[in-house]
Order: sequence, then structure tokens, then C-alpha cells
Amino acid sequence: MKILFVAGDPKPERWTALIRALLPEAEVLAWHPDSPPVNADYAIVWQPPEALFEQEKSLKAVFNLGAGIDGLLKVRNLPGDIPVVRLEDAGMSVQMAEYVLHQLIDASRGLDMYRVQQQDSHWKIHRPIKREEWPVGVMGLGHIGKRVARALTGLEYTVNGWARSAHEIAGVRAFAGNERFGEFLASTRVLVNTLPLTEATRGIINRDTLSRLQPDAVVINVGRGEHLVDQDLLDALDTGQVMRASLDVFSREPLPEDHPFWTRPEITVTPHISARTLRDATLEQITRKIRDHAAGREVSGIIDIGRGY
Amino acid sequence: MKILFVAGDPKPERWTALIRALLPEAEVLAWHPDSPPVNADYAIVWQPPEALFEQEKSLKAVFNLGAGIDGLLKVRNLPGDIPVVRLEDAGMSVQMAEYVLHQLIDASRGLDMYRVQQQDSHWKIHRPIKREEWPVGVMGLGHIGKRVARALTGLEYTVNGWARSAHEIAGVRAFAGNERFGEFLASTRVLVNTLPLTEATRGIINRDTLSRLQPDAVVINVGRGEHLVDQDLLDALDTGQVMRASLDVFSREPLPEDHPFWTRPEITVTPHISARTLRDATLEQITRKIRDHAAGREVSGIIDIGRGY
Repeated sequence: MKILFVAGDPKPERWTALIRALLPEAEVLAWHPDSPPVNADYAIVWQPPEALFEQEKSLKAVFNLGAGIDGLLKVRNLPGDIPVVRLEDAGMSVQMAEYVLHQLIDASRGLDMYRVQQQDSHWKIHRPIKREEWPVGVMGLGHIGKRVARALTGLEYTVNGWARSAHEIAGVRAFAGNERFGEFLASTRVLVNTLPLTEATRGIINRDTLSRLQPDAVVINVGRGEHLVDQDLLDALDTGQVMRASLDVFSREPLPEDHPFWTRPEITVTPHISARTLRDATLEQITRKIRDHAAGREVSGIIDIGRGY
Repeated sequence: MKILFVAGDPKPERWTALIRALLPEAEVLAWHPDSPPVNADYAIVWQPPEALFEQEKSLKAVFNLGAGIDGLLKVRNLPGDIPVVRLEDAGMSVQMAEYVLHQLIDASRGLDMYRVQQQDSHWKIHRPIKREEWPVGVMGLGHIGKRVARALTGLEYTVNGWARSAHEIAGVRAFAGNERFGEFLASTRVLVNTLPLTEATRGIINRDTLSRLQPDAVVINVGRGEHLVDQDLLDALDTGQVMRASLDVFSREPLPEDHPFWTRPEITVTPHISARTLRDATLEQITRKIRDHAAGREVSGIIDIGRGY
């Protein structure tokens, strides 16, 4: 069995060595545009170039190194007749949950304000949190959205969820479909985005969406930068409709140095770190699936290219 | 039934009105040092003066407005022959859990560092968290300690617990008694203190304790300021044994403006806000207990004055 590793990591041997250790029966190669075709059986990829699929015509499946596959779907010659498999969790969702909790608590408990007070050695106690004043709405109820919602209910927040299809999650008021989106927003003060990026969700956090949230709204975006219309968020901060935003993803990454998000005091910018790929957990999952696929067993996480996730 | 409300709140009517609404059968009075004795049946107190117990000789029980009763135990003429009842949870423990989570995540995920980078519009990604590098140790496994431990296991941290007596908590490695304190510390990098303040626990976070923690230790103190030997923490920060501390409680509150804690970059100071008394939940609990006591039913949360909690 031949496996090609195709990612922009400058030290691919950190990955290929681990793949070899996990799948000793395989021949593992790091792809390079100048190498001749190797007739690989499987490719493990992150944002692969089109050249890969021009050269490699014997692939039986493609494994994506992340949960979001919007980057992969941009590859125009991605084969449509073999399984394209995304990463399922692999330690990502708990990281996402803790990032969201942190940003929410920072706002709801006024810890940002207490940090400012410390700079002036100023002891001042503000009125206590009322948990019911901070209903959270989670957009997207896949692996990650569910895990985030569960962490929030664990801390006794009111949690709404919204997704294209119906979901049942203990303690979460789940809304399904476009026709209930308005109701979901009207019940929500803290909007958390974990949606996949598709043509249907691009720009979903826009002027109209923000205006329907409860007053003094908070936006936490851990989905994709393209979900957000940047200028609409800035305008909503200007009018005070939105009081605060935590952004981990951006339409252009790295976020350009002169982008206004960097310097808005109401915006927390982090460099796409809310959920990091954990090499061990990721490769354990992918090599297990490769072994299953090679043995003719079913593999989960196959994406629907038409649907986009 | 007569109830005396005895706390330093400048607007006691915010409390007495609610007590009347919850216990319409009672006569509810706000205590004042100049008023004559009223022969109250019950007192609801926060740090009451000795004069109260000199005047009121018909009290059947005393209800403390907080979970910590170290302030109450300082009152030398606190009657020993009637139940003294502390607040049990009443919305405090979930607040404490979220404060601890926030401070832990701030450290473990480097979010403090990313805040500094944002000040320079600087996009730089650091190596991902390894959860196993951040074992947390919770001192005190009462209502609050248990709730904190549960929140931490929910985010898949390794959690140790230490208390005077044995406890069983799912997912927590619990150590009991002084003879296992060293083992608990050696397994812990992030030390979270939720202990009650007693003669046995005063100064428990000291030079020796700090030196036994894992390298690059973190201290989160939500117990009492007197649990910590201030200078020992400063010294441990100087040597690098402790990398960071989050302190919500202090030997003197408000923390004096010239105290070095305010200006140490490794220390987060908050003004005793990790768990706030929520008036509604607190008075619902206390009035329910008063009604139970008056009807001869058992009441939970009676403190052991000798033990100190």
C-alpha cells in the first residue's frame, strides 16, 4: 500500500515518520511537485494542489487533515468518484469548546473589565452576572457545535442551537432550517459560529443577522472568516448593537496588519488557534480509517461534495 | 416569627423586602446597633458585630449569607448552642467553576500571550496545547471544589483532588489527608484552592507547597487570601518555579493600592468576584431553611464550629 502525504509543512518527515509507525505495512512518501507519479493508493492532504490529482490516478480515497473541507473543495479536479474523508473531532472539538467558554466568560463575567482595572491598581466590584442575561446561540450542530453546546449547558447557560437539519441535544433549544433562523437569532445574545463554509453559509453573519440578535450582542467566530461580513460587524460595533466580538478566523489569513479588527478594543483577534490539529490523534484516526478502507470496512466522515460538508 | 437581617449593605431594604415576599408570615427587621432588642427568632447575617449576640438572646438559629464562615467564626460570642447554618451553593459553585476554567484556559491555551500579540497587530501561531501538560489539582472537595473538578474533567483535563477526608468523584484522582499532600502536589501543575479557611489551612500555599508543584506551576486562589503566604508566591514567581497566578481573594480586601500583586505581569488580580452572592437564590435557600427549622424539620449546612467549616 502506498500513501502520499501532501501538505505545506516544511518538515513533512514529522508526519511521515509517524504514519510509518502507525501503518508499518505501508510505503509512505511526502509528495513533491517535481517527483514522478507514484501510483499512490491513498493521499493524506491539506489544501493540495491540482497537480496532485493530475499525476495520481490510482487513488482509492483522500483523507483531509482537518474538519473543514472548504479548502479542499476549491481544488477543481478533486476526484468525485472516490471517498473524500474529513477529520472527525480528533481532539479538535474540546479545544473549540474551551476557546468559546473562555471568550464567553471573559464577556459575561466582565473579566476584560477587571483586567483594565488591574492596570490602575483599582479595586471595584461590579454587579454580579445574571446568567439568564447571556443566552448563547450556537450555529452549526455538527461534532464541534454539539461539543460547544454541551460545554455551555454544563455551565448552566441558556443555549440555543441552529442547523440546517433537526437535532436533539439535551438542554439545548434547537432550531432547524432557514424558516426558524430569525427566531433563533431573537433568542440569542451571544452568537457562536461553528458552521461549515458553503455557498449557503458564506456571509451569514451580516448586517441583517446582527440586527436581529438581542441588545449588547457578542459574536464568537470559530468557523471561517468568510462567514462574516467584516464591515457589517464594524458597523454594528459602531452603533452599539454588538458590544464585543472574538474572532479566530478571517477571510485573509494572516489577518493583514492594517485590518481594522486588530485595533478595535471590542474585538479579540486570535490567529486561527481555537482548535489546533493534534498530530498524534489526527494520524491515529486517519491511519485507522485507511486500514479499514483497505480491508473493505466502512469508513465514517465521507463528505458530500455537493452539499459541501 | 421575627427575623433580623444583619449585614453591612447600605440598602438593607433590598434584602428585607425580598425576605418578606418569600416568608410573608414573618416580621422582618434590619438590625441597627441603636435599636432596642427585638427578641428575634432567626438572624440572617454577614460578618455580624458582637453587639448582635449581646442583645438578641432568643435566637433559634443563625444563617450565614455566604459559604465561607471564617468571618462569622471571628465573632467571639457566637452562640454555640444553636445551629449556625452556612449557605450551600445557591449559584456560587458554577460561578467559581467558570472563573477557574477561564483562568486555566487563559494560561494553558496561551490566550494571555495572544492578547499581547494583538496589541502589536502581530499574527504568530505558537505550538498547540498538550492537555496532558496541564494536570490540575483542586484543594478542597466540598460543594465548590467538586463543581470545579467536574467542570475541569468535562474539558478533559487531568484532575487531582485533595481534602482532609476521602472523596470519590468520577474522573478525579482524589488524595486524602496530610500524608498524601506531597503526592497530590507532585502530580499537579495548576493548583486551585477552594479550601475553607481554618487554623489547619491558613498559610497552606507557602514556599514549601509551591516548591513541590510541577515546573511552570500556576496558582488559582478562590479560597481565602489567608491561605496564601504572599511573599512566598512572589519569591516563587521570581525564581520561575511558578509561572502565573490568578488571585481573587486577599489577606486584606480591598487589596491595598501599593501591594506588589497589582503590578506583577504574571499575576491576575480580581476583586473577590469569582463567586458572587446572588440575592434571589440565597434568600430562597435561607427562607426555605427557616421555614423547615420552624416546622421542626432537619436543616442541612449546619457548621461544626470546632472544625471550622
